[in-house]
Amino acid sequence: MTLDGRPPLDSAPVFRRIDHIGVAVEDLDAALPLWRDHFGMELAHRETVQEQGVEAALLDVGENHVELLAPLGPDTPVGKFLAKRGPGLHHIAIAVSDIDQAIAEARAKGMEMIDHEPRIGLNGTRIAFVHPKSVGGVLTEFVET
Amino acid sequence: MTLDGRPPLDSAPVFRRIDHIGVAVEDLDAALPLWRDHFGMELAHRETVQEQGVEAALLDVGENHVELLAPLGPDTPVGKFLAKRGPGLHHIAIAVSDIDQAIAEARAKGMEMIDHEPRIGLNGTRIAFVHPKSVGGVLTEFVET
Repeated sequence: MTLDGRPPLDSAPVFRRIDHIGVAVEDLDAALPLWRDHFGMELAHRETVQEQGVEAALLDVGENHVELLAPLGPDTPVGKFLAKRGPGLHHIAIAVSDIDQAIAEARAKGMEMIDHEPRIGLNGTRIAFVHPKSVGGVLTEFVET
Repeated sequence: MTLDGRPPLDSAPVFRRIDHIGVAVEDLDAALPLWRDHFGMELAHRETVQEQGVEAALLDVGENHVELLAPLGPDTPVGKFLAKRGPGLHHIAIAVSDIDQAIAEARAKGMEMIDHEPRIGLNGTRIAFVHPKSVGGVLTEFVET
C-alpha cells in the first residue's frame, strides 16, 4: 500500500465498529443452520436485493453481524465470486457516523470508491463500497448507522 | 452445510462480538498506513508470533479490531495463503466468554476443530481455530475475552 504523501485530514470519519462480515454462500437455507443453530446467532433480517442480485440474511453477534449472501444467478457479482473463489469471506463493512463524509475523505486520500454516492443497502441503510485494490485486497463497505 | 440432526445444546457459548477480522498482507509496515492513517484506526498492539510464523498488528475499530498478518516466510500458513490467494481477508475471530465451552460445543455439533485445546494467541489471549470446511469456507477463530 503506497501513501500518496498527503497529510491526514483533520477529522477522520468516526468508524464506530465492524458492522458486519459478508460471507458468500451457495444456498441461504442450507447455510443458515450453521450460523443460527451451531453458533447460536439470531437471525435478525432476511431480504432479497434484486439490484445487487443477492438474497441476504443478517445474523446478530452482539452489536456486530454476519451477513450471508447467496447469488440470485451465476452472472451476479456474488455468483461470479463463488465461481472464482468458492464460498467464504466476501467483504467487511465498517459502521460510519456520516457516510458522505466517509466517501469524501476516502476520495481525498486517493482511495478508489466503487460507489461515489451512497446507495441503499440491506434494511434501508445507506452504504458505499471501496474498491479492494485501495484496501489491500479487502472489499470494504461503509454503512451509515 | 449439512446439519447432523442433533438437537441444539441447551446453552450456546456466549458469542459477545466479532473480535477481529484477520487480513493477510505482504508487508506490515507498508500496510499499516492504509488502516492507521487513511481509515484513522489506532494501532493497539504489534507482536511477532514465531510459533504461527507471523508478525501481527491489531488496530481498533470501536470494540472490534482489524488484525494485519504478515508472514515471517513463504512456508508459513499466511505465506502459503498469500501465494495462493493474494492479500486480503484471511479469517474472522469471534469473542467468546468461555473458550473451553465453545470448543466442546462446536465438537458436539460435529464441527472440525483445528485446535482441540486452546492455545495462546496475540496479547496472551486463549484462542482456537475451527476448520473452514465446518464454517462454509470461513476460517473462524474463537478468542476468549
